Amino acid sequence: MEEEVVKLFGSRSSPFCCRVECALKLKGVKYEYITEDLSNKSNLLLQYNPVHKKIPVLVHGGKAVVESMIILEYIEETWPEVNPLLPADLHERSVARFWMKFIEDKCLSIWQAFRTKGEQQTKAIADSLEMLKTIEEHALTGKAFFNGDNIGLTDLAFGILVYWSSVIEVVIKVKILDAQTFPLITSWKQRFMEVSEIKDCLPNYDELVTFFKLRREIVLAAAATSS
Amino acid sequence: MEEEVVKLFGSRSSPFCCRVECALKLKGVKYEYITEDLSNKSNLLLQYNPVHKKIPVLVHGGKAVVESMIILEYIEETWPEVNPLLPADLHERSVARFWMKFIEDKCLSIWQAFRTKGEQQTKAIADSLEMLKTIEEHALTGKAFFNGDNIGLTDLAFGILVYWSSVIEVVIKVKILDAQTFPLITSWKQRFMEVSEIKDCLPNYDELVTFFKLRREIVLAAAATSS
Repeated sequence: MEEEVVKLFGSRSSPFCCRVECALKLKGVKYEYITEDLSNKSNLLLQYNPVHKKIPVLVHGGKAVVESMIILEYIEETWPEVNPLLPADLHERSVARFWMKFIEDKCLSIWQAFRTKGEQQTKAIADSLEMLKTIEEHALTGKAFFNGDNIGLTDLAFGILVYWSSVIEVVIKVKILDAQTFPLITSWKQRFMEVSEIKDCLPNYDELVTFFKLRREIVLAAAATSS
Repeated sequence: MEEEVVKLFGSRSSPFCCRVECALKLKGVKYEYITEDLSNKSNLLLQYNPVHKKIPVLVHGGKAVVESMIILEYIEETWPEVNPLLPADLHERSVARFWMKFIEDKCLSIWQAFRTKGEQQTKAIADSLEMLKTIEEHALTGKAFFNGDNIGLTDLAFGILVYWSSVIEVVIKVKILDAQTFPLITSWKQRFMEVSEIKDCLPNYDELVTFFKLRREIVLAAAATSS
């Protein structure tokens, strides 16, 4: 039916869009991917997300849903049967949402590390390490995925961030996710990356490195000019 | 049943706890309120919320749920029948969650205005005004409450913040929520404050002003010492 058409407005360089695409793949939902030119945003994007004017935007039956974490909840509520991505138990759901919010609140540090150098970058890297330490100690003990045996929304929130972080690590030449310091996260990451729907969605690693190397040069040059 | 006992660990000076208490009242859930001494947190609190060590904590059947927005979702999922606080329509739910997240992300500016003076405060007040402007223009047109005719989670998220902000305005002697600039928010606020369950939960205004006046002195003195 026309009103059931699913469109994802996004960009392959955005982890926030990748999270959403992975969820659609896991649910087996057919969708059209519409690549946005972020330097020249389409009128449709501005109309669908007038407050933030950002991707990703999911359009389902002509109605827009925005913000990656909210889109994830929407996808789970709309297609609950295939691959449930939140636990059925209400307490466990609150724990899953706790970690989603934790990741969302703390993920800025890796972008801060990407955007800065010197002291600011050192502080941002310390914040990233602190985030990983909390997850290593509290979130994954004795479990294959955040919710237990099966991949869920929290894995998408964290996993895609970890993949992009591994790109940033190369760009800024700093190892953050060390296997010896973070054994649980490291083995979880391996399991996560082996899920076929995830593999299908992740953009090519080397291309991301090239893209973000150039991006960092531009960002640092702009910061030098404005300071 | 013992396993169904509901306890709320909180403090009457915290808007985040007040949100949760309002939701419990709207649902008609019986609960025990356990006041935490924030200068000397209980072992129970640290055990229930080991990551953030913060209130509010909702304990239901011996299990802890933390973070006010996540507790609100938990309350809605656990007691969905009485006073539904999220729309039944999935797209409308995503809109409600969009505004909850928007409010959560932007609410820091009023606390920043409370904690600072001079240029920093001017910037924080400008951010608060920008937040109100977005809500005035996009969220409340033609509606009694955020979700339509009935009070919901977004109203709790925003309404309690607005009440505390009205306290902060007096403490810092700056009017932010002006009725002429924000007519929709102003009339919405009146409706919100008239809901009996909300009235029951709001702490005494004058006592909050006294509390936050003293608190601001302490915060500014500490900032002056450390700078």
